[in-house]
Amino acid sequence: MVMNRKCILRLSRYKNALKRLKALGFVKVFSGNLADAAGVTSSQVRKDFSLFGITGNRRGGYKVDELVLRIREILGKNEIHKVVIIGIGNIGNALLRYKGFETGGIRIVAGFDIDPSRYQPERPVPILPLDEFRSYVESNEIKIGILAVPDVAAHHVSEIMIAAGIKGILNFAPIQLRGADDVVISNINLEVELENLIYFVNVADKSVPALVTEDD
Amino acid sequence: MVMNRKCILRLSRYKNALKRLKALGFVKVFSGNLADAAGVTSSQVRKDFSLFGITGNRRGGYKVDELVLRIREILGKNEIHKVVIIGIGNIGNALLRYKGFETGGIRIVAGFDIDPSRYQPERPVPILPLDEFRSYVESNEIKIGILAVPDVAAHHVSEIMIAAGIKGILNFAPIQLRGADDVVISNINLEVELENLIYFVNVADKSVPALVTEDD
Repeated sequence: MVMNRKCILRLSRYKNALKRLKALGFVKVFSGNLADAAGVTSSQVRKDFSLFGITGNRRGGYKVDELVLRIREILGKNEIHKVVIIGIGNIGNALLRYKGFETGGIRIVAGFDIDPSRYQPERPVPILPLDEFRSYVESNEIKIGILAVPDVAAHHVSEIMIAAGIKGILNFAPIQLRGADDVVISNINLEVELENLIYFVNVADKSVPALVTEDD
Repeated sequence: MVMNRKCILRLSRYKNALKRLKALGFVKVFSGNLADAAGVTSSQVRKDFSLFGITGNRRGGYKVDELVLRIREILGKNEIHKVVIIGIGNIGNALLRYKGFETGGIRIVAGFDIDPSRYQPERPVPILPLDEFRSYVESNEIKIGILAVPDVAAHHVSEIMIAAGIKGILNFAPIQLRGADDVVISNINLEVELENLIYFVNVADKSVPALVTEDD
């Protein structure tokens, strides 16, 4: 089965929307509801679902519970996924304390840094020396890591992560890291995102015609 | 001229790579260098540059200084761009303290929250009551805002931002916000990003064939 990142991103958005609808007491949902929530067309929603063998009908819609269950299966969300963070600066520290993940079956289990002043081994979510990264990741079978170190260290640290067996990296360092054959890397560059907005706001001011923004 | 977000994102990545090359003393750069840095092909780099009338040649390459200058022009980076943040929780606070933006001509000038315990009007980057958002944005002609409030508040707050004249929103709340005709919204959903990684790591474990990941 051929699948791409965008499709999986949409599934996650559908799931998040479904959790909210469920919280509001909805039992059934229609592709149009999810299209609104995910910012896509209804036909896109139905296309995505059919890709995973999820069926419903336009009149009856989909059962929220079944849909959540099925999407969680697809996204592998029926287990808790342990995630580590390297680089406990402003961003890393914020992610370490971020509560929003737990509900999604994602648990930040440890942070790592090279700065001894940041070590907090006794905390429930400990901050440990980078030297201990590999042994920790191996003994806890961690596959996902968040990289939040300065740009100059990012490439080197990503190699440490991959060498330790990390297969998925969410990179916040402002350089573009590329994955290997068996390693997926998502790059989140906040400066680039802001520059992107600034560009389009400026263009809008100057009202340059034919501005195309892709679905992201 | 037709342009899309992806192209602008690549330009930002080229610029960030150029800043690093310049710091290392490089005077000339070739499309291949930037392709590596941005994770695209050389022909993509040349295509992007030609779109903006930037010319070089494969032998001589591009002059780093001229390229930086031109890209900064295109991205509107020759002025300082003032950005505000609404929601000074973990993420908002981290962004408020994040130093990486200054070099890029982006300055976080103020934060806003509804929680009085977070107000710090005397700080160089003040944290102010949300009530003061509109007057502040109008008198300081702010066009870009970062939204870092809980999901339940996100839609309402985005309306407050747009009503105040914000034209570009970087949304960290875990719901998908859509822009209006003259408002661009970039959604960064950390949970979705992590789920996306988890999915592909799981698929790789189960070694499902024909995994397609789009260029993002």
